[in-house]
Parts: sequence; C-alpha cells; structure tokens
Amino acid sequence: MTASRRAALKGIDAVTVRAIQDSAGRIHERVRRRAKPEMQFPVRALSNVRYDNKEGFFEIGRSKKVRSLSVNTVKTFAQTLRMMVLSKELVETNDFATKRDAYYQSKNWDEARFDEQTESDAVMDDIEAMCSVRGVSREQLRFIPDEHGGAVAGELIVHDADLETGKEEHIDCTRFGSGAYSIPSLTEHLRFETKAKFILCIETGGMFQRLQSHKYWKKVDCILISMAGVPTRATRRFVRRLADQCKIPVFAFVDCDPYGISNIYRTLKVGSGNAAHINQFFCVPQASFLGVTPQDIIDYKLPTHPLKDVDIKRAKDAIKNDPFFQIHKEWAKAMEALLKMGVRAEQQALAKWGLNYVIEKYLPAKLKHPENFLP
Amino acid sequence: MTASRRAALKGIDAVTVRAIQDSAGRIHERVRRRAKPEMQFPVRALSNVRYDNKEGFFEIGRSKKVRSLSVNTVKTFAQTLRMMVLSKELVETNDFATKRDAYYQSKNWDEARFDEQTESDAVMDDIEAMCSVRGVSREQLRFIPDEHGGAVAGELIVHDADLETGKEEHIDCTRFGSGAYSIPSLTEHLRFETKAKFILCIETGGMFQRLQSHKYWKKVDCILISMAGVPTRATRRFVRRLADQCKIPVFAFVDCDPYGISNIYRTLKVGSGNAAHINQFFCVPQASFLGVTPQDIIDYKLPTHPLKDVDIKRAKDAIKNDPFFQIHKEWAKAMEALLKMGVRAEQQALAKWGLNYVIEKYLPAKLKHPENFLP
Repeated sequence: MTASRRAALKGIDAVTVRAIQDSAGRIHERVRRRAKPEMQFPVRALSNVRYDNKEGFFEIGRSKKVRSLSVNTVKTFAQTLRMMVLSKELVETNDFATKRDAYYQSKNWDEARFDEQTESDAVMDDIEAMCSVRGVSREQLRFIPDEHGGAVAGELIVHDADLETGKEEHIDCTRFGSGAYSIPSLTEHLRFETKAKFILCIETGGMFQRLQSHKYWKKVDCILISMAGVPTRATRRFVRRLADQCKIPVFAFVDCDPYGISNIYRTLKVGSGNAAHINQFFCVPQASFLGVTPQDIIDYKLPTHPLKDVDIKRAKDAIKNDPFFQIHKEWAKAMEALLKMGVRAEQQALAKWGLNYVIEKYLPAKLKHPENFLP
Repeated sequence: MTASRRAALKGIDAVTVRAIQDSAGRIHERVRRRAKPEMQFPVRALSNVRYDNKEGFFEIGRSKKVRSLSVNTVKTFAQTLRMMVLSKELVETNDFATKRDAYYQSKNWDEARFDEQTESDAVMDDIEAMCSVRGVSREQLRFIPDEHGGAVAGELIVHDADLETGKEEHIDCTRFGSGAYSIPSLTEHLRFETKAKFILCIETGGMFQRLQSHKYWKKVDCILISMAGVPTRATRRFVRRLADQCKIPVFAFVDCDPYGISNIYRTLKVGSGNAAHINQFFCVPQASFLGVTPQDIIDYKLPTHPLKDVDIKRAKDAIKNDPFFQIHKEWAKAMEALLKMGVRAEQQALAKWGLNYVIEKYLPAKLKHPENFLP
C-alpha cells in the first residue's frame, strides 16, 4: 500500500471515528450537566424524502426523531451506545461485521443483549441514519451486507489492499476466462485503473455470461457488471465509486418492464425511497438507460408477454407518485407507452434473432447514439 | 490450449453429438420403416429414485415413459427434435444458451414455437433426462443455468480457455484481495491446479467474506467456496470436478438447522430427489460435514433460536422418508438430537465469542479431527 493510500484510508476512518465520538460526546456532556441524555435520528420514511435532479438522488429531508433516555428507552439507548462502541472497535482493528455478527456479538452485552435480530437491525439502521448526515455510510462504520456481490469482467484493474499486511493486489478483470471478479462486501478501500469508455450494468446472469464469454468488453472497450436483479449495496457502491473515480458513464441494460425500469434501474440511478439516508452513497447519478426500451419492442419486433396486474400497478404508481418519473418527462412518457402497449419484453428476447444478435446488431446500433438513451 | 486439452474437449463434445444423433437416428429409422416414431425418457419422480451409498448419490431408476408420435403429441415431438438440433448447433459452434435464450430462439420455429417458457423448460428437462442415461449432462448439451455462480478464494489456479481463440488463462485465486473468483455458468472445460489440503464450502456470504478477508485459506492451505444458500448447479459441478480432479476432500460449514443439513448439505453431497437424473454430475460424494453440528451447540454454548414448525416438519420428513438419513444412522441420530433440543443455531452464532473466534478457535479445533465429521 502506498503512503498516500494509507493516509487516505486513515482519513476516512478518522472521519468515522470522529462521527461516533461526537455523538457519544454530546450524550456524555448532557449526563455531566445532569440533563436528560438524548439522541437524534433523521426520520426514515417516504414522507421525509426529496428528489433534486441536480443532486441526482433521493435525499433525506430534515425531520428528526429524538430518543430521550427514560425507563422505556433505557435498553435501546444502551444498545445503541454499545453498537457504536462495536463500530469504533471494528474501525480501529480494521475489521468488519455483518448485521448477524453484530446481533450475536451482543449476546455478551449482559442486559443490553438483543433478543431478536430485528431489534439489532433497527438499532444499526438508526446509527447508520445518524451518521449519514455527516456523510458516513454503514460500510464506513464497518457493518457489511451479507449478500453476494455482483460479477465484473472487462477492461479494469482493481487495486485492493490486504486487510492484515496492507500489501496491494492488482486484480486484472480481463483475466478471468469465462468466470468473473466477484465484488467484495466492502468496497470503500478499492481503487481503480481503467481505460474503458463505459460501464455496462446487466440485469441477468445469462446475458452477462454471453457478453463475457464472447469477450464483448474487448470489442467496445468497456466494463461488464452483472447485477443479477436489483443490484446489492456492494454492487451499487462499487459502480458508483468506479464511475466517480474514473469519470466514465454507466449504461443500464435491463428488461423492458416496470420492475426493470422502476426498481432495478431507478434504484441503481437515484436510490430507493425508504432508504433515503443512504442514497448519497449508493446512487449512480451518471447512469443512463440503454435498453430495452418500449420503442425497442417495436423497432426490433421483440416477442413479448402481456403486462401482469402487478406490472400495471407498479407503472401507474411510478407515474403518479415517484418523483423520478415526475421530473423526467421522457420516463413518464415511456412508461405510459408501455402501459398502452400492454406488454413487456425481456432482454433475452433479442435471442429470437439469433443468440449473438445482441452482440452483433443490437448493442452496436444502440451505442452509436448514447444521446438517445433515456435519462 | 494444449493439443491434449483440445482432444479431450473434442471427446466430450463428440459424445454429446453422438447421443443426439443416435436418438434422432432411431426416430428416423422408424419413420423410414413406416413405423410410428417414439422417444423414451426416464421417469423423473421420487418414486423412480434409489440411493446406493457406494455410488454416493440419488440415482434415477429404470422406469421409462414413451412419447409416440400422434395428433396429440405432434407439436411437442417436433419441438423436442428442434431443441435437439439447437443443442447440436451450440456444441458445433462452441456456444451456449440459457433456458430463456432457448425459449426465444423457438420464436423462429414457425408452428413449433413455444407459447410459454414452462413448455420449453419441460422439453429441455426431457432431453436432459434422455441424455443423462448416456452420461451426458445439460451443460454438455450447452444449456446453461441463468443463476449466479458461487465465489471462490484460496490456493487454487483455474485454467480456462477462451471461447473464440482457445488461448488459456490461468486464474490465480490467491490474488483477488478481499474479492473473489465468480464461477462461470459452464464449468466442464475448466482444469485445476492446486496444492490445497481441502475445500471448505460455506453457507453464508458473510462468513465467506470473513474467512477470505482474513486470508484464512493461507493459514490452513485450503480453497474457500461461498455457496450462498443451496449451491447452484454451476457451484456444485465446479466443486465436484475440482475435488475429483485434485483428489481432495470437501468439508461443509453450514447452519445447524434442518434446512442447512437436509437441503444445503444433503443436496451438495448426494443431490436432490426430484432431479435424480442429473445427480451423477452434480453430487459431491467426497463431502463431509464439519459443522455446525447439534453437539457444537452444546460444546460451544452457542446462542440458539427455537425450531420453527417448518423446521420440525422438515427434520421429521428427513428421518422418515429420506434414504440419505436412513442409510447414515449418525445423521438420523443427529437430527433426532436437534429435534429433542428444539433449537437451531446459525454459523455466525460463533461471533458471540468474538468475531474471529471462528478462525482462531472453532475451525482449528474441528480440523484436528476430520474423522469425527458427520458423513
């Protein structure tokens, strides 16, 4: 690890520890003054969300809830403090814990132990929300998700430092054969080296495997990412940091249905409504929508399925209530077109014209006009 | 790619093509003789399964169903033949298709097109079962699953050949920092180079990340595999081929509950009951069960949860109906002990004693006595 890298890492960790110490310090100060200690958390609910197109993500509003120490809150209060101590220890020992690890760790906290993991998850969410207003993410607090990361292939070298020795590995994502690089749970410490022109985020594992096995990334100089449905936190953060650091655009290639558009793509780009306090870390504002678009269904004569009731409900909800679709009129129009057509199409529907039609015709035609991608 | 490698690959593909040609040839022969053409498939049902401890997997029995050409079967008959043609083309062009790809390909088969993917899936299952009696797997037919593969880290070099150029990549799984190697959908063409003493298959992504980030594989000379729940076909096949080729044992490290034992572990080791025609390819008979065992719950004073109704039902079913538990008395006893204790424990419950207790105490103690692992 280079000295500047070590300094930078220290910098992130220093901010995290300071955020914890400040919160704890305020409580300590009130106790010292014999005032009732309290903690403040931003309210995590759709009602406390705003979407600013310039910022590029769903942002949490200013509503706060206050937890004062009382007979009723004493246990949660103590648990929150213990959880903050755990986070500080994790940063200091350069380690990490899953939600589940944290729950089991508490079994040694005597009376402050959690009885159910739902309780410890809620406390962790509170701390995450509290620290998010200082720009500190859950991953910086060293709490990691217990989900598989996406797969990566293409023109990218990832720099990763050994947890214990600090020695740096350079991981060349062109060298995985038909396999791929699997994104770790914690991506804050990664650095990137690439000459790729764009990042292509792909919904299905099958399509990713096709593009990867045929080394499509070599033909067009890009990085392929398999999202496997709604991308996990680790995948979103990885794409965001990669796109930020290397200043390259992100194109999404998903199914043409309300789920692919409003859940997968919208979550990738601006985040989700009920986790607004974390969107600043996980959104990918530089993303745009390559396809499959409603217009593609017509242009490419794709085989379709009728929209299900749940699709129709999701599309109508998005048009009516989702700030993302209200701000981007093109998207509201596209959704309305889809509703009118009454059908949906999967990205693999392109296989009707040949298994590698997607490589030989569809993607080249699309990539000639990125200015036409939906926002 | 070496000449011997090219020859071997050709060998596998030659067997596949011959299996398809023979089946088609028998039909053609009957047509030529003006007899009614028919196809034979093994019956895929629990009633047609047997478990031989020596063979090491659930094997399909001898019951067959016959599909004769008639007005009622003509469409399925034609579809089955077209699907066999597709498979042959995939082998010949060194390509592959997901179930979904195959469904969409059929949209160009005029009257033989499938209306629903469930129909094309069923035909693919039939062909798979038909070819399985000749030792040819679905992956050899070049139909790949559309699921994410498991993650791999540790003392292993994977040899993979480029689909188009045949150039071989050597993928060193010790060099991925906190990330990992993501297993491709198709693993038949991979070769392995390792001095590892064993393969450790891990249920949760969180535990895998802990062992990987702390480079546990270096301490004990092993290969870590993240199964992320019930292992996918690609993961099972990868472990099986790796263990066969390198002659090393496989240890499973999963939650101590009826799901972890009878679904995850039992599926890994002997396969599943309702897909008996494929178990010969996907089972890992050399697997044994490191933990978490019911006895571990007592020995390590692990925090537990009460068994849910579904757990109790699953455990009772296993003891009563599952040939695996009937043959392995130790397993029936362990399941009964769990039922009597009325609790289950997750592998991350070890975190009660410290996040890295699993690395420092639990695994070293266990690995001293692999002879005590459950079969």
